[in-house]
Amino acid sequence: IVLHGNGDNFCAGIDTSIFDPNFPRKFADSMKPQPGSHANLFQRAACVWREIPVPVICAIKGVAFGGGFQIALGADMRYSTPEAKFSVMEVKWGLIPDMGISTTARHIIAPDRLKELAFSGRIFNGEDALSMGVVTSLHPDPYAAAMLTATEIAGRSPDAIRGMKRLFNSGFDLDDAAALALEARIQSGLMGRPNQVEAVAANLEKRPPEFDD
Amino acid sequence: IVLHGNGDNFCAGIDTSIFDPNFPRKFADSMKPQPGSHANLFQRAACVWREIPVPVICAIKGVAFGGGFQIALGADMRYSTPEAKFSVMEVKWGLIPDMGISTTARHIIAPDRLKELAFSGRIFNGEDALSMGVVTSLHPDPYAAAMLTATEIAGRSPDAIRGMKRLFNSGFDLDDAAALALEARIQSGLMGRPNQVEAVAANLEKRPPEFDD
Amino acid sequence: IVLHGNGDNFCAGIDTSIFDPNFPRKFADSMKPQPGSHANLFQRAACVWREIPVPVICAIKGVAFGGGFQIALGADMRYSTPEAKFSVMEVKWGLIPDMGISTTARHIIAPDRLKELAFSGRIFNGEDALSMGVVTSLHPDPYAAAMLTATEIAGRSPDAIRGMKRLFNSGFDLDDAAALALEARIQSGLMGRPNQVEAVAANLEKRPPEFDD
Repeated sequence: IVLHGNGDNFCAGIDTSIFDPNFPRKFADSMKPQPGSHANLFQRAACVWREIPVPVICAIKGVAFGGGFQIALGADMRYSTPEAKFSVMEVKWGLIPDMGISTTARHIIAPDRLKELAFSGRIFNGEDALSMGVVTSLHPDPYAAAMLTATEIAGRSPDAIRGMKRLFNSGFDLDDAAALALEARIQSGLMGRPNQVEAVAANLEKRPPEFDD
Repeated sequence: IVLHGNGDNFCAGIDTSIFDPNFPRKFADSMKPQPGSHANLFQRAACVWREIPVPVICAIKGVAFGGGFQIALGADMRYSTPEAKFSVMEVKWGLIPDMGISTTARHIIAPDRLKELAFSGRIFNGEDALSMGVVTSLHPDPYAAAMLTATEIAGRSPDAIRGMKRLFNSGFDLDDAAALALEARIQSGLMGRPNQVEAVAANLEKRPPEFDD
Repeated sequence: IVLHGNGDNFCAGIDTSIFDPNFPRKFADSMKPQPGSHANLFQRAACVWREIPVPVICAIKGVAFGGGFQIALGADMRYSTPEAKFSVMEVKWGLIPDMGISTTARHIIAPDRLKELAFSGRIFNGEDALSMGVVTSLHPDPYAAAMLTATEIAGRSPDAIRGMKRLFNSGFDLDDAAALALEARIQSGLMGRPNQVEAVAANLEKRPPEFDD
């Protein structure tokens, strides 16, 4: 999945209609986890990209502010233009960023840099985002670069790709025993199955593989 | 809070009087967690800056060695001169760094780089510290830069700032369900409260906000 | 311990004989944790370098692919030539990397960059590896540099070195209370013991220390 804005921007963030005086009751409901997920309605918009078993690449140009910034953090990879504009903007509205950032930003951006961005709400560009780890890489045309990577991934065994997404999403936050057991469990489910046998055969025979999905 | 050295250095580290032959008994007591904290007497000097609910910026020039280095790691942000000198120096005294570094350095510096610094006790400067993530940013006058950021933060809703510090300090180390629930709990406590309503109103009316603290 | 390849390469990865049709039964056994460890047979090759109480420095030239890449990640520090070639190559065989990468790569490389490398199986060099945090530093002769660091470490109190390896391997993944307690426990075991007293005495008397191991 390649996730991108429709037009010149990725996503400008919050829908200010939530500040409507009639909103509070709806707000309380939207704070509860949704069925089958740890995430509530707002968190879901960012966390759903982690829950989907296939890779999600985010292509960013223009602005990615507030909620838009957090949706980008939920993707597996982030490709951006050097000129794109980012902001953890919620403090502008007297709020904390609450769309899963505490699960998506860990391992990606150091807490001192995230605090500075979030406390100040300041706007930073793609170059800054790369140096802080917020984006994976910079490209003049992030959408084209994302499609290229997506095509490359699509040529790999879909079982292995799904297994790796699951491993890296979960394994980094488990204790050693549980993480090692997860590796063994995922690998045992792949080894000797048709797509794995086909990957080996195609490589040894120096031909393109044909996978079932 | 802006934390800085009084004079030309930030902090030169350990008080060697703890190596006094009469110290051991006092030492045993000082290793026990203090009331209301997981941290003992020595750890408290660094961890207290994390426990305080408001942002703490550390302004570093001169040397930040050993215990001084660990106190700096306990702050929310670290501003340094390029020439400042740092060292994880405890190995010089046959000791491990034990002032909370295992809680403050995670997410900040990678373990391979921290091990190299800690095993060797070598001295490194602000440029190296920036490239390893140990400091947030470099400034010719870190104290002036820290005061500028502190002033900027002071213009934001104090409720949102406190909520974000709590979220980023705790959320990075919780499992997904607990981290997402913490986000929702903090946000629910802010939404619709006077300071949050004032932030929205001031922004929509394009005037400076006036917050209660 | 300095870990290096015998010849022009570090390690080219998987032994393709595991794809032998007669392998599956042996494979199932090799997926179970070994006595006294959370790691199974394959994971052990990488995780054993973390379990060993003394520092392990990996010197890399030539290729470090697949399993070889994961063995390198298991070391405490990684020194590489700028030209060395790395790859998380398991996807080529329709597999996930399963030699402890979910425990060794956390805190070292960000998940978005690891996913890109692992999903694509692409080959990257030492310069890229440094910028992503995969290697600790670059050297024209990594083996010579590793021996220099090993010699430096060998001049420090062996008790303190072992204590720090234990602290940084475990402390980063414990909750705050457990991590702080571990610091206190390790330090209490060092303070006032012969090697610690010798470190202080040698420093105050400005002479080289003599440690017992």
